Amino acid sequence: MQILKDKIRQEGKVLSDNVLKVDSFLNHQIDPTLMKEIGEEFAERFRNSTITKILSIESSGIAPATMTGLALGVPVIFARKRKSLTLSDDLYTASVYSYTKKESNDISISKDFIHDDDTVLIIDDFLANGQAAFGLMKIVEQTGASLAGIGIVIEKGFQPGGKLIRDRGIRVESLTTIRSLQNGIVEFFEEVHAK
Amino acid sequence: MQILKDKIRQEGKVLSDNVLKVDSFLNHQIDPTLMKEIGEEFAERFRNSTITKILSIESSGIAPATMTGLALGVPVIFARKRKSLTLSDDLYTASVYSYTKKESNDISISKDFIHDDDTVLIIDDFLANGQAAFGLMKIVEQTGASLAGIGIVIEKGFQPGGKLIRDRGIRVESLTTIRSLQNGIVEFFEEVHAK
Repeated sequence: MQILKDKIRQEGKVLSDNVLKVDSFLNHQIDPTLMKEIGEEFAERFRNSTITKILSIESSGIAPATMTGLALGVPVIFARKRKSLTLSDDLYTASVYSYTKKESNDISISKDFIHDDDTVLIIDDFLANGQAAFGLMKIVEQTGASLAGIGIVIEKGFQPGGKLIRDRGIRVESLTTIRSLQNGIVEFFEEVHAK
Repeated sequence: MQILKDKIRQEGKVLSDNVLKVDSFLNHQIDPTLMKEIGEEFAERFRNSTITKILSIESSGIAPATMTGLALGVPVIFARKRKSLTLSDDLYTASVYSYTKKESNDISISKDFIHDDDTVLIIDDFLANGQAAFGLMKIVEQTGASLAGIGIVIEKGFQPGGKLIRDRGIRVESLTTIRSLQNGIVEFFEEVHAK
């Protein structure tokens, strides 16, 4: 997605070989017009999958997920992060390890909103080691719903998450995939879906 | 806003005389089409205020704020909640007491995104005691920006936040104002802005 690449090149801050900060349009300040285009792009790519629900995770997944839900005309559920395991019969829960924070957190959703007749599209901002994505996939599994795939705004192609998920036969659509952040420079893989 | 009132009547769950749960379209599951209409309504009400930035707070403020930013064509910044005071020169920070959780948390934004020449519209999901709104107002004060007003999706008119803020001469636009949740029934105030 060219407009997103341009934005990353212009405003992304490479903090290390692993860390790209995109606080000016995705993770802290949000560019609503760009989010709308992102949502429409995800909708376009999953148009034939008869999605009935979008699943995302607070907080940075909410804006792109909501715009995808708007474009597809379906509700969006965002998983909540919780510090510790609160056992509850009303929740689907999964544990997610954060490499950044070096701690595990639970993420959960209410059982009220995704059911076994749903077809779910997972949307998230970043895909790196895949921990959040695997957590969301575990939740979808518990609901009994079908998983249509995963839409990612920025995939770090040099980290293993994308390959691990695709190796399971799950469709991952990343709007941009970063090949490298070395020497402070953002290098992208060529896109499969030219736009 | 009639469509919002209808949605609250149909799907809101009155958990006590003080607590209304709207998890099915605002706080956990999001109705993107309704959020878009909410964003357009806020934009309409603040159209003449030459807003340059929207300020909201994670997580439930993000969807209505992003749609308001889309309608007004301006960026959205969401304040982050943090467990404890991390002093940082790069942040504007305010303390927010939660009556629900009976604890104080800090909320903060980066200094990069709101400046003294900005005109800010605060958007949040609920207004009850006003703690979150006052925290966001304190942050706007620190930035030196002008505050155009506060847009609230659901105001609990029987709690003091709205009056406290209006008494300071600040414009508060609530799309719905609840008069009472007693006996499990949602009663609304009549709207000033008929729609």
